[in-house]
Amino acid sequence: MVADQLIKAGRRFDARGWVLGTSGNLSAVVRRDPLRMAITRSGTHIDENGAASGGVAASAEALLHLTIVRTRNAGAVLHTHSIWSTVLSERFGDRGGIEIGGYEMLKGLAGVTTHEHREWLPVLANDQNMPRLAAVVEKTLRPDSHGFLLRRHGLYTWGATVADAARHVEILEFLLESIGREQESQGGGAWRT
Amino acid sequence: MVADQLIKAGRRFDARGWVLGTSGNLSAVVRRDPLRMAITRSGTHIDENGAASGGVAASAEALLHLTIVRTRNAGAVLHTHSIWSTVLSERFGDRGGIEIGGYEMLKGLAGVTTHEHREWLPVLANDQNMPRLAAVVEKTLRPDSHGFLLRRHGLYTWGATVADAARHVEILEFLLESIGREQESQGGGAWRT
Amino acid sequence: MVADQLIKAGRRFDARGWVLGTSGNLSAVVRRDPLRMAITRSGTHIDENGAASGGVAASAEALLHLTIVRTRNAGAVLHTHSIWSTVLSERFGDRGGIEIGGYEMLKGLAGVTTHEHREWLPVLANDQNMPRLAAVVEKTLRPDSHGFLLRRHGLYTWGATVADAARHVEILEFLLESIGREQESQGGGAWRT
Amino acid sequence: MVADQLIKAGRRFDARGWVLGTSGNLSAVVRRDPLRMAITRSGTHIDENGAASGGVAASAEALLHLTIVRTRNAGAVLHTHSIWSTVLSERFGDRGGIEIGGYEMLKGLAGVTTHEHREWLPVLANDQNMPRLAAVVEKTLRPDSHGFLLRRHGLYTWGATVADAARHVEILEFLLESIGREQESQGGGAWRT
Repeated sequence: MVADQLIKAGRRFDARGWVLGTSGNLSAVVRRDPLRMAITRSGTHIDENGAASGGVAASAEALLHLTIVRTRNAGAVLHTHSIWSTVLSERFGDRGGIEIGGYEMLKGLAGVTTHEHREWLPVLANDQNMPRLAAVVEKTLRPDSHGFLLRRHGLYTWGATVADAARHVEILEFLLESIGREQESQGGGAWRT
Repeated sequence: MVADQLIKAGRRFDARGWVLGTSGNLSAVVRRDPLRMAITRSGTHIDENGAASGGVAASAEALLHLTIVRTRNAGAVLHTHSIWSTVLSERFGDRGGIEIGGYEMLKGLAGVTTHEHREWLPVLANDQNMPRLAAVVEKTLRPDSHGFLLRRHGLYTWGATVADAARHVEILEFLLESIGREQESQGGGAWRT
Repeated sequence: MVADQLIKAGRRFDARGWVLGTSGNLSAVVRRDPLRMAITRSGTHIDENGAASGGVAASAEALLHLTIVRTRNAGAVLHTHSIWSTVLSERFGDRGGIEIGGYEMLKGLAGVTTHEHREWLPVLANDQNMPRLAAVVEKTLRPDSHGFLLRRHGLYTWGATVADAARHVEILEFLLESIGREQESQGGGAWRT
Repeated sequence: MVADQLIKAGRRFDARGWVLGTSGNLSAVVRRDPLRMAITRSGTHIDENGAASGGVAASAEALLHLTIVRTRNAGAVLHTHSIWSTVLSERFGDRGGIEIGGYEMLKGLAGVTTHEHREWLPVLANDQNMPRLAAVVEKTLRPDSHGFLLRRHGLYTWGATVADAARHVEILEFLLESIGREQESQGGGAWRT
């Protein structure tokens, strides 16, 4: 059932171009004790065989999923590769993150009740060394974090359920594209959150 | 039947990315006296259970729908969250609205017969206080209004039927994207309506 | 059968956002002598009832379709309302048209065999007076014309068959978007065809 | 079976607007000795009859496919016409190519294991003389090439299988759009790979 939910989420993301080239990974907790997770081998072209179950998954990025599940007590972790998350991770990379405030869509993030909320979305340097990157992620995440970007790589977000995590993907992608287009209308200059 | 029409409209809006993250609300009048309305709990992932019927709907924004039905005698009220309505509500927010003139697509708005029509699309400050916001909406709407934007939030439009209101969503979204892209080609400078 | 082809073309255009808000008209010749045409009442939400047959169709723009069929000996006339045709008709309106040269996609236009071809796509002022506009169209079209834009209104193109005309819509829309995006990367300045 | 795979890839590309106007060609090796290839007559509207088998295919561009199969030992060659490949081929045409580095998505290219990889994507002048163009392609391709652009024309890429080649199309299209949008946020100025 969790596998079906991941497949459905993957199809939606594929239709929107957020997991092109079989990129991205989607995972969910199957059992807490002992911890067992389902993780897709690829975000695109997901089918029944696209979701394998096991304590340690084949994907190199599974370690990041595991770290997020443990430190944030998440039930599902979704990782997508969109154009706008890539472009904005580069624009804001030197500042270490993006402060997002003033958007009604922020209320789609778990626990947020007003557009006046200010969300800090960290941008971390990309790294092929997964244990090292997992340590950085663990150190960076705060109790109120909803996601983070890897520079010129993509978005990680999570939630209590697959549906919550999928909603977070859509909310954060919407906000990133909105910010990106607002900046362009200002000639790439300073941008007010 | 009205619920089916709302679901169909929601699916079209979802495909275009106008109700991402289960955002947006779609409503229609079921009976006039006493007034009963159907309203979706969310714009995305709409299914049979997504439309509930009742005098007062669960969604906090139902009060706005009700206000519009009463003051504009609308049969359906549609609220979407698109990238371009968000971006343009911010660009034009300080001016209080967007004057749209000279576009053939204006003829898709009820009662408009020429591209020379000038439509005033108000941009209102976003507010989590629904009674206060409803009062502002009621004061702002004119007999010839077809919609309004909430700043960094989204679009409200309406019509005699769900089909009329859905056409207004598409027409206004088209006009907002056209204006947004025309502005960009002019370096974000002054823009001629 | 011609009606089915128009409906199929309309669905493709709807999916791409080129006939939003039930805009646009699609027509095809059913019989030459006496001339009978099928024309859709609207481009969007086309269904079996969306195509009516008759010498004079209900749509006010049917006169333009008829003029094109007669002066260009077309078998099908397609009229769409896209964002990019709207934006570029405004950018190039004061010059009276757009010269398009150097693109491989030009070879998708009937009779064009090299990317070195230079296509002149006229931009005409929009007008609600159909007889007057039809006279301007008749005077403007040249034997080698493949289409024209109405300013802040949309695209007209045609072909020997519905398939040819539909290919012309896709080719011209592609070229307009490509030109629009090339211009933007040059800060809206001069643009080399 | 190879024909089915090509048709499936063509449908995905059509949905994304990469083979508008029946443009593009998709081919795959059916047998190595003697060499037999399947090639689509058009990328769009592909159906069962859209794939013909033969040593020399009808499409004028079949010679390029054959050259790539021979010099790169490819099992499939895919040629698409997207907006972004067209726009970027023009922006980078005078430099002879695009150096792409620093993107995680590069790892979707066969043999690439880190985002620190630097891919050289050549941009060749467009030419209607296929034997002459094939000679330029043969001279340009290096053992580590994954694709090339024809200026204001489109993308060629390949792979051991149709799935590999299709992944390369999606990866390269993603990278081109990302680069294009990053440049725009910098006012079209210098761009750091």
